[in-house]
Amino acid sequence: MIARMNSEVLSIGNEVLSGRTLDTNFQVLARLLEESGAHVVGHQTVPDDPAAIADALRLAWSRADLVVTTGGLGPTPDDLTVDAVAAVLGRAVVTDEGVLSALRARWRTWGRDMPPNNERQARVPERATVWPNPVGSAPGILAEHEGRHVVLLPGVPEEMKAIAAASLAPWVRARSALRVEYALVRTVGIAESVLEARLADAAFDGAWIAYLPGQGGVDVRIALPSGGTDVARAQFAESVRTQVVRRAKDFVYATEDRTLEQVVGDLLLADGLRVAVAESCTGGLLGGRITATPGSSQYFEGGVICYSNAAKVAHAGVAPALIEAHGAVSEEVARALAAGVAARFGTACGIGVTGVAGPDGGTSEKPVGTVHIAAVGPRGAYHRPLKLTGNRAQIRERSVTAALDLMRRLLAGLPATSPDAMGTPPPRTAVSPS
Amino acid sequence: MIARMNSEVLSIGNEVLSGRTLDTNFQVLARLLEESGAHVVGHQTVPDDPAAIADALRLAWSRADLVVTTGGLGPTPDDLTVDAVAAVLGRAVVTDEGVLSALRARWRTWGRDMPPNNERQARVPERATVWPNPVGSAPGILAEHEGRHVVLLPGVPEEMKAIAAASLAPWVRARSALRVEYALVRTVGIAESVLEARLADAAFDGAWIAYLPGQGGVDVRIALPSGGTDVARAQFAESVRTQVVRRAKDFVYATEDRTLEQVVGDLLLADGLRVAVAESCTGGLLGGRITATPGSSQYFEGGVICYSNAAKVAHAGVAPALIEAHGAVSEEVARALAAGVAARFGTACGIGVTGVAGPDGGTSEKPVGTVHIAAVGPRGAYHRPLKLTGNRAQIRERSVTAALDLMRRLLAGLPATSPDAMGTPPPRTAVSPS
Repeated sequence: MIARMNSEVLSIGNEVLSGRTLDTNFQVLARLLEESGAHVVGHQTVPDDPAAIADALRLAWSRADLVVTTGGLGPTPDDLTVDAVAAVLGRAVVTDEGVLSALRARWRTWGRDMPPNNERQARVPERATVWPNPVGSAPGILAEHEGRHVVLLPGVPEEMKAIAAASLAPWVRARSALRVEYALVRTVGIAESVLEARLADAAFDGAWIAYLPGQGGVDVRIALPSGGTDVARAQFAESVRTQVVRRAKDFVYATEDRTLEQVVGDLLLADGLRVAVAESCTGGLLGGRITATPGSSQYFEGGVICYSNAAKVAHAGVAPALIEAHGAVSEEVARALAAGVAARFGTACGIGVTGVAGPDGGTSEKPVGTVHIAAVGPRGAYHRPLKLTGNRAQIRERSVTAALDLMRRLLAGLPATSPDAMGTPPPRTAVSPS
Repeated sequence: MIARMNSEVLSIGNEVLSGRTLDTNFQVLARLLEESGAHVVGHQTVPDDPAAIADALRLAWSRADLVVTTGGLGPTPDDLTVDAVAAVLGRAVVTDEGVLSALRARWRTWGRDMPPNNERQARVPERATVWPNPVGSAPGILAEHEGRHVVLLPGVPEEMKAIAAASLAPWVRARSALRVEYALVRTVGIAESVLEARLADAAFDGAWIAYLPGQGGVDVRIALPSGGTDVARAQFAESVRTQVVRRAKDFVYATEDRTLEQVVGDLLLADGLRVAVAESCTGGLLGGRITATPGSSQYFEGGVICYSNAAKVAHAGVAPALIEAHGAVSEEVARALAAGVAARFGTACGIGVTGVAGPDGGTSEKPVGTVHIAAVGPRGAYHRPLKLTGNRAQIRERSVTAALDLMRRLLAGLPATSPDAMGTPPPRTAVSPS
C-alpha cells in the first residue's frame, strides 16, 4: 500500500495539441484517479512523436508513481505510444496472441476479415499486463519500471472510460491507502457566490468543498479527509451533507447523483401525475431535457413548440387578446401556455416558457434575456419573471432549468422563489476570482 | 519576423488539475495560436503552486518561443501566477496604476466600492506590457525574457478569449512569417472512414487534411501550406475545396462555417417556405436545434412533441389504425407525423421522427436504435429507416441530424439517400484509430 500515490496523465495526439479536438479524457481520468486514491500532480499534452512521448513520460515519472497515457493506440502508423513507451522501458514490442485472437473474433462478429494493419493493436511491450477493452479494439496496457508504473489507454473516450473504470480504478484502489469520501448536494436557482457566502461559516472540520456550476445549477461537492473507519467517514459525510442542506434550504434539489429533470419526474411519479410543456423561446429544449431520462414516458405526455404567435393561439389555446394586450413575452401568456397545454394534452401539470433569447428581438422594455416561465398543477399555478444574462444558447438553457425548478417547487409544496434566488446579479467575474 | 514560431500553453489551477473543471481554454488558445502562425508544441496543466508554475515555464521555454498561461490571475491569495512568473523573470512585482484605476472605475459602475483584495489584480511584473481586459478585471500581461516571451491570461473563458482575440492574436501575426489558410467542407450522413477512402487518392499537394466528427456530421478541414502570394493561396484553397466537394458529392452540406440547421433554414427561406416538426423519441431536440439559429422564426412555425401515442393521434393527426397496424415506430407513422404536423400547423414542409432511443423498449424486431424519419414538402415526401448505434443521447442527436439532412435533401432536389450513406456500419472503433 502506498500512503500517498501521486499520478500524472499524458494526453497524446497531434489533434489534441493543435486544438482540433477538445480533450475531455484528461478530466475524466483526473476525477477517476483522485476518487480512487491517486493524487494528480501533473498533466501534459504531447504530440504523436516518440521522442516527445518519451521525454514526457520521464518527466512525469520524476514526480509521480503512476503515469496514465491516453491516445496513440490505434491501428495506423501515426499511433506510436506503444513503441515510445517500450523504448523508455528498454523492452521489445511483441504481439500478444490473446489480444490478437480477441481482435479477430471481434471482426468475425461483423462478418468481415480483419485488415492486416489492425494487427498493430495487438502489439504490447514485453512482460506487460493487458487489460481487456470491453467496448473496442485497443487493450489497456500496464507496465512496471523501477518501482513506478505506466498505464496506456486508448484515446477514444468511451474505450478509455470503459477500461479505466473496469481495470485502472480497482488497481489504484488496491494499492493506495488514500480513501476519499464524497458527499454531493445539488442546488438550483442560487448564484455560486451567494451559496458560498451562506456556507462560509460552517464548520466542516477539514472537509474540502468545491462549487461546480453546471447545466442544472451549482453542485456542492464535499471531499472528506481520509482516515478513520468506514462508519466514521459515512457519519461525517452525513453530518456535512445535513449542514449544507440546512444552509442552502430549498435551493437543494438532490443529495445524490440525480438530475433536476429526474427529480421533477420522481415528484410527478410519486403523485401519479403527468406533465405537458408549451415552449416558445426554448423551441423544444425543455421537452428534450425531460425526455433525456429513460422511462420519462411514464410522466411526460408531450407538448407544443409554439414558436409563432399563431401556433400559441391554435395549439396551446392562448387567447389572441392576451398576446395583443401584454405581448407574447409576458406573465399572462406564460400562464396561459402552461394551463393551455395541460388542458389540450389532458395532463394534471403544465409548463409554459416564453422569452427573448436574442441576440435580436430585444426592446428597452423587454431586453434580451427577458423570459417568463409558468407552471400549473393540482396545488395551483406559479409564475416567475426572469432576467437572464449570457448568449442565446445560455439564455435558452437557463430558461429550461428555471422552468424545471418552478415545476419542482410547485410539486414539492415550496414557494415559487426564495430570498437570494438568482435575479440580476452583477456579472459573475466581479465577485469571483478569474 | 520569426520563420517558425513555437508556442506552449500552461493551464494553471488546482480545479483543472484535479478534474473538477473541464479545461476548454487550452483548445481555444491552441486554435488561435495555430491560426495566427504560432505552432503549438506543448501543453502542461499545473497546480496553483509557485514552484510548479516556475518549473513548467522553464521547461516550456526550453522548446517554445512563446509561452501562454491561463489561470491564477484572480483576486484571492491562491492566485499565484504573477508572482511565480516574476520570480522566473527575476523581476519585482509592482502595482500598475493604470490597471488599478480601471478596476476602481469598473466597480463604480456597479455602484460599489472595490474590496481591497481586488487590488491584487493590478499587480504585474516590472517592465511588463499590460493588455486590457474588455470583459473583466484581470488584464493580460506580456513580458520578454532572454529573447523569449510569456503572456499571462485570466482563466475565466470569456475573459481569456477576449484578450487573446484582441491582443494576443495580432501580436503573434505581427511577429510570425507563418501564414496558414484553411478550407472547410462540411458533410453529413457519411462515415468518417468512408469519406477518408473517397478522398484517399486526391492530390492535394501538401495540404494537410483533418477529419473532424461533430454534431452535424464530419467536417473536412484542410490546412494549406504557407508561402506564395495571398492570391495563389486563395486559388489553391478553392481548388482543394472543389476536389473535396467533387468526391464527397451530395454528402456535402456547406463549404463555409454554417451549421446543417442553418443550411436547411437557408433553403426554406430561398423558397419562401415554413416548416413544422413532430417529434416522438427526440422529445423536442429537433425543434431545439432548428431554433438554435437566431432568426429561425422566419421559417420555423413550431411543432408537436408527441411522446405518447395519444398525443400522436390527437395533436399530429396520426390515424390510430396506423399505429395499431404498424406500431408507433414505423415508416407509416413517421410519414403520418410529417404530413400531419404540416397540415395542422399550416406549413408547406413537415418533419417527423419516431424511434426507440433506449436503453429499454427495444424488441428483436425493433431493437434500440431503430428510428424512422420522414420529411414532406412541395417536391414530395421522403422517408428513411435508421439503425443507429450509441447510447440514448447519441441516438437522439443522430436522429435529429439525419432528420435535418432528409429535409435538406428534399428541399435541394437530391435523392433521399446515396450509396455510402451511413446505415449499419460496424462500430467506428473498428476502422478508425483509437
